[in-house]
Amino acid sequence: MDSIKEKMQQHLDNLTKPIGSLGRLEELSLKLAEIQGKAPPRLEKKACYVFAGDHGINAEGVSMYPQEVTEQMLRNLINGGAGINVLAKHCGFDVFNVDTGIAVDTNSETVIKCRAGNGTNNFLKEEAMSQSQLEKCIENGKKLAEQAYNDGYQLVALGDLGISNTTTAAAMVIAGGLDFDSIVDKGTGITDDMLLTKKRVIKDSVKRHSPFSDPMDVMRKVGGFEQCTMAGFILGLREKGIGCIIDGFPVTAGTYMAWLIDNSVTDFLFAGHRSKVKGHDIILKKMGLKPIADLDMRLGEGTGAVIGGFMIELGVRIAQEMASFESANVSESIAEEDNY
Amino acid sequence: MDSIKEKMQQHLDNLTKPIGSLGRLEELSLKLAEIQGKAPPRLEKKACYVFAGDHGINAEGVSMYPQEVTEQMLRNLINGGAGINVLAKHCGFDVFNVDTGIAVDTNSETVIKCRAGNGTNNFLKEEAMSQSQLEKCIENGKKLAEQAYNDGYQLVALGDLGISNTTTAAAMVIAGGLDFDSIVDKGTGITDDMLLTKKRVIKDSVKRHSPFSDPMDVMRKVGGFEQCTMAGFILGLREKGIGCIIDGFPVTAGTYMAWLIDNSVTDFLFAGHRSKVKGHDIILKKMGLKPIADLDMRLGEGTGAVIGGFMIELGVRIAQEMASFESANVSESIAEEDNY
Repeated sequence: MDSIKEKMQQHLDNLTKPIGSLGRLEELSLKLAEIQGKAPPRLEKKACYVFAGDHGINAEGVSMYPQEVTEQMLRNLINGGAGINVLAKHCGFDVFNVDTGIAVDTNSETVIKCRAGNGTNNFLKEEAMSQSQLEKCIENGKKLAEQAYNDGYQLVALGDLGISNTTTAAAMVIAGGLDFDSIVDKGTGITDDMLLTKKRVIKDSVKRHSPFSDPMDVMRKVGGFEQCTMAGFILGLREKGIGCIIDGFPVTAGTYMAWLIDNSVTDFLFAGHRSKVKGHDIILKKMGLKPIADLDMRLGEGTGAVIGGFMIELGVRIAQEMASFESANVSESIAEEDNY
Repeated sequence: MDSIKEKMQQHLDNLTKPIGSLGRLEELSLKLAEIQGKAPPRLEKKACYVFAGDHGINAEGVSMYPQEVTEQMLRNLINGGAGINVLAKHCGFDVFNVDTGIAVDTNSETVIKCRAGNGTNNFLKEEAMSQSQLEKCIENGKKLAEQAYNDGYQLVALGDLGISNTTTAAAMVIAGGLDFDSIVDKGTGITDDMLLTKKRVIKDSVKRHSPFSDPMDVMRKVGGFEQCTMAGFILGLREKGIGCIIDGFPVTAGTYMAWLIDNSVTDFLFAGHRSKVKGHDIILKKMGLKPIADLDMRLGEGTGAVIGGFMIELGVRIAQEMASFESANVSESIAEEDNY
């Protein structure tokens, strides 16, 4: 008998509203209660971890931008000027910048150093990383989860940053068993020629490294440092019982790796939003996760995750702060009233 | 030439992100900029006005609850224990309780008195209200808008409270030209017998009062005090250039009346969320409004409106606080990068 779930459901049903009328807010707070084993759940500290990495595949012309832009954008995050800084502040998340291995070390004290190298190798030509680099990523992710736990975070959002990381992400999920055509979509902003290049690069890369024996094999051959570190982070958060909100396509590719390793990770995962990137929803569906927000966003950095996280918080505050029928002296029969 | 729109678009496109990558957050802040005539828009004060009313049609057994529950729930709002109190607090909205005419006057000092009567008449048997009551509602709504303006509110959310108000709302929108079968849906929580009753009551009432010459005629014959007051409020907010976020089915029915009077009200309206009530989305589509949140909610009170309002605020904060390419020293070419 799942007593926390029952206790939480009973708690929600005693609040002064028709039963279930707060829909997904109730569902989200119920899930966090189960994750924490506390009804109602607690939520004082939330953090967004933004994982930055560089990708050797960028050399194949799959993006309009040189690798330097990853560092420029990471510096923008450090200075508080990026989209995630603004949204995290207003949604109540602390932001941690994690360098999983961008091309040039920023040497900034406000960056958490988890560098597995100076960017991955070009996986069209060789394996993206060595076995020891992969293991370092996973280990770094688990250590970060330990730190998040020690810092008292009860809900964590994931973000990504890295030029060409969507090419890596697509290769990872296709190598991990998803259908090429439903994943590789025409984005905007890249030319038709570039899209052809991108498609060819992904297809040839996956073909080159096939077959893939398991998720670790996928990650080593076509992975990104940030996705691999996230996968370790997710597995670590699960061990610590910390709820985790995922973001768009690159984060969800890393999450998919953790899911392939252990399908039950979804028990403590929330899908922050549905990205405008077509393939994103396919991966979410495969893992059985329903996005919270749907705002046509495709920025990355964790921007969709913190918005979804704010909705989770609203659900928690409802559970913590609304009056019960008894305390408000409201006729309990309204619990069964539908709004229509 | 719409210079505010162009100025705002240019401002958004200069921020350190791929163009358009914050999707609807950008769209919402752009709309508020146009409403205010300021780019970027300002947003220091937000309020949620919850309109309470009672409905004579309740006597026909269309709800499981007696009218007393309206007063009990209004007292719950006054005491800060209702869902809207919790959500408004965390989404940064002040809450105003407006009594548009519930059965029994609460005589509470924290309620704004806009009473047009002690509940409407049973519109299955007679007209819901007199012409002078209707005019009083519209006038009260306009005065409230004046007050909101004087108080410095830049964004206003609408909420509703009142037993049987969904029956009134359905009658209003059907009398206003929408299709019966797409509006009157089986909710949960009422029995099959009750649904049959509700359907019959709505159909017979609309038939009884047909034809309807104009929206004022609809409101007088089958309206609710709260919907009519809201309609006046919306028309008044428009005059004052204050953005307005609508909520679920009962609020949207009132909004639909204002829209029938002046189609251009949608220029300053936001649809806070898509309610779980089936007919809601039909009315939104008719008015050309796309909901911001979609969380299976059906509580009313403005709960969906303030959540949508928070998303608008996030869009504004993005416009106000994100770094530009120049200020962040990021290569501007990333503006054209798609996240995929």
